[in-house]
Amino acid sequence: MAQKPSIPKGTRDFTPSEVVKRNYIFDTIKKNFQTFGFQPIETPSFENSDTLMGKYGDEGDRLIFKILNSGDYLNKVDDATYREKNSNAITSKISEKALRYDLTVPFARYVVMHQNEIDFPFKRYQIQPVWRADRPQKGRFREFYQCDADVVGSDSLLQEVEFVQLYDAVFADLKLDGVTIKMNNRKILAGIAEVIGAKDNLIDFTVALDKLDKIGEEGVKKEMLEKGISETAIEKASPLFKLTGTNLEQLDALEKLLSSSEEGAKGVAELRFIIETISELGLQTATLAIDVTLARGLNYYTGAIFEVGAPEGVKMGSIGGGGRYDDLTGIFGLKDVSGVGISFGLDRIYLVLEELELFPEAIDQSLQVLCVNFGDQEALAALKLVTNLRKQGVKADVYPNSAKMQKQMKYANNRNVPFVILIGDEELANNSFVVKNMKEGSQETYSLDKVAEFVKNL
Amino acid sequence: MAQKPSIPKGTRDFTPSEVVKRNYIFDTIKKNFQTFGFQPIETPSFENSDTLMGKYGDEGDRLIFKILNSGDYLNKVDDATYREKNSNAITSKISEKALRYDLTVPFARYVVMHQNEIDFPFKRYQIQPVWRADRPQKGRFREFYQCDADVVGSDSLLQEVEFVQLYDAVFADLKLDGVTIKMNNRKILAGIAEVIGAKDNLIDFTVALDKLDKIGEEGVKKEMLEKGISETAIEKASPLFKLTGTNLEQLDALEKLLSSSEEGAKGVAELRFIIETISELGLQTATLAIDVTLARGLNYYTGAIFEVGAPEGVKMGSIGGGGRYDDLTGIFGLKDVSGVGISFGLDRIYLVLEELELFPEAIDQSLQVLCVNFGDQEALAALKLVTNLRKQGVKADVYPNSAKMQKQMKYANNRNVPFVILIGDEELANNSFVVKNMKEGSQETYSLDKVAEFVKNL
Repeated sequence: MAQKPSIPKGTRDFTPSEVVKRNYIFDTIKKNFQTFGFQPIETPSFENSDTLMGKYGDEGDRLIFKILNSGDYLNKVDDATYREKNSNAITSKISEKALRYDLTVPFARYVVMHQNEIDFPFKRYQIQPVWRADRPQKGRFREFYQCDADVVGSDSLLQEVEFVQLYDAVFADLKLDGVTIKMNNRKILAGIAEVIGAKDNLIDFTVALDKLDKIGEEGVKKEMLEKGISETAIEKASPLFKLTGTNLEQLDALEKLLSSSEEGAKGVAELRFIIETISELGLQTATLAIDVTLARGLNYYTGAIFEVGAPEGVKMGSIGGGGRYDDLTGIFGLKDVSGVGISFGLDRIYLVLEELELFPEAIDQSLQVLCVNFGDQEALAALKLVTNLRKQGVKADVYPNSAKMQKQMKYANNRNVPFVILIGDEELANNSFVVKNMKEGSQETYSLDKVAEFVKNL
Repeated sequence: MAQKPSIPKGTRDFTPSEVVKRNYIFDTIKKNFQTFGFQPIETPSFENSDTLMGKYGDEGDRLIFKILNSGDYLNKVDDATYREKNSNAITSKISEKALRYDLTVPFARYVVMHQNEIDFPFKRYQIQPVWRADRPQKGRFREFYQCDADVVGSDSLLQEVEFVQLYDAVFADLKLDGVTIKMNNRKILAGIAEVIGAKDNLIDFTVALDKLDKIGEEGVKKEMLEKGISETAIEKASPLFKLTGTNLEQLDALEKLLSSSEEGAKGVAELRFIIETISELGLQTATLAIDVTLARGLNYYTGAIFEVGAPEGVKMGSIGGGGRYDDLTGIFGLKDVSGVGISFGLDRIYLVLEELELFPEAIDQSLQVLCVNFGDQEALAALKLVTNLRKQGVKADVYPNSAKMQKQMKYANNRNVPFVILIGDEELANNSFVVKNMKEGSQETYSLDKVAEFVKNL
């Protein structure tokens, strides 16, 4: 019985052209991860449920895909529990494994399990898919790749410096000029909250502040008031509305504002070190900018916070982000391991490169040479030539049967093959081959012992 | 609460060294897939259950990992069904998605769904993990990669020829000399069954024949008799016991034996074409050998059958296999699409390369240069140098803080760094850096404007 096939919502097939373009991004990122001394690890697609559950909040727990136990799984459910027919209560009895929700928790689990064989500081990268039972929508998928680099076991700010350089190096290699690497520090946010006396409203405060560009100072103040932030607090915070000028000017203003908060001052000093060091080292194409409204996963980060914005004019959310966290591995029993990491948003970077036409020309050209098949003898000669070409790394093929010329040429056209080779009677007789340049329409004849010459011209 | 973390049985973490070695195999295979004109596709990790169920037999159905529906999934189970507490009956009500069991069925589904955008013959490769709820044992995992290349939409025997060449090219690139590419043809097996009048005992027959090396002609005959194959049939099949000599001699013997079976004769002719063509083209390091006992997935293949044996002396099952199948896409409504494909057994190839020490030397060297950190000023100079080195593709790093020399050198040793760079007071003052060759213990001083010279010597 034939079924009309489909795929689950929120998932995707990737066509050859898409795979090649995605791999171009992955490979560029990987190359830079490696030159920066990061090492790859891979973890299983599913983890024991208790490794994942409770790590991402209640909402996260609900979005984790659970895997049904094998065999007679209901056998393990006691009758009393079963009779209640409560999905929540039964899940943990019939499912012991779950699909990876991100790469961070599996990484923490890995570090704890492998701590005796790891040389700290451990710089690892990991590029693998994750799964979330989110409602699918434009640009949001149930299966997508994460692409993370982290260092654990060092609290040196040189790590933060290095991540700024890493972002810059990757986007420079991708020819994606004009990205902005925005930085903040959790301690600065804590300092602001302390200084203005609005610790409990910190999130409302930063959310409102973030809209400064769009709704102006008055709009921001209005929203803050509505959220219950006192006029006094807003007054005290007013220097934040005027944070302009160079990074160093902004740092000076922040330093002044946060002078009475030990934690805040420490945050400013950290940010200053990173910004001054980067200014010594220089960046290739990215811009480093302070953004005190940046709060990403506020409860998670404890120091630096990063976010990368696409070049101006491209409508796209952040294309990367990260930060420093303390005690990531504490949940699995390994205390006091500080870490810092960043990630690249593959799907969004893909869309940006597509929009700006930054993928290398002919990146998805899967065949450089196709030999027309004129019959058994001719095909054998063509296959010999193709075998030779392939050994030299040329993507080459013989059409598999002696179909009509028109059909073979149509195939060559559809696959965008730049060179079609013809070996017919005559060429067989005098050990030659004809190369047809599909773009220019020109033809050239080579002797079979001059293959190297043809390859050189490719 | 700290948990002692673990991973599900049958799954694996891959350490940096393992990932790098696995990628070496993947990359070698991919490179050859590409020069042979294959294009990559990727499909989702999970499919709709009805895409997978019923495609792998009852045993396969049981081994498919099912994903629990999200939310209040029990709500969809009617009370009558629920009361029975029958796992089998309830599964399809609480699970609509399942993890990919192999790459073949998702590929068939892909071809049918994308048929209008595909140029046939479609040569695709796919390298992705699959999941099976098999009992884990040595060398058998619940998550493992499959690595497949298939052509659909052509019944030309040149495809089979090409797959023999592809196996040869990959194993030659991996320096794995001495593999045997064994070939058979489903039509030859059918012919044998027809000729000896033992169609119903074909599997018993080939299983027994397969033991010829180990238990000798008498042992094989005894087993056949025990399995209910008649003496007459065994007598008629006796030429199979004496199939020796070159491939061409074996083909002649088979041709004679199967002359009265149209299907068998066709199988011999197909095999002859492949073997003669390969003999014209030559192989780099592999040997092509007829093996009439080869039956892999008998019900699945309809023409050529491939299996690759590891070099003699290595105790390992097959490291690759495949064959021709008709009508793969028929299950999803697209009829008459012939296909042929092969796969590479990554985990086994890995073990063979490890056993024979064939991985390139220093393949897992993750850092070429480490700069010792002597303090802020020195580290900044080191970071400038490292930034330069990284831009030239050198894997380089600065130790993140000015820890004791001993600790930094231990880290360099543990990570097998071949070159340690020292920039201290003196070097800062005269714009130089000292390179310590960790293997030879020698030291050399370079001027900071002679970095290119150092890189050249790496």
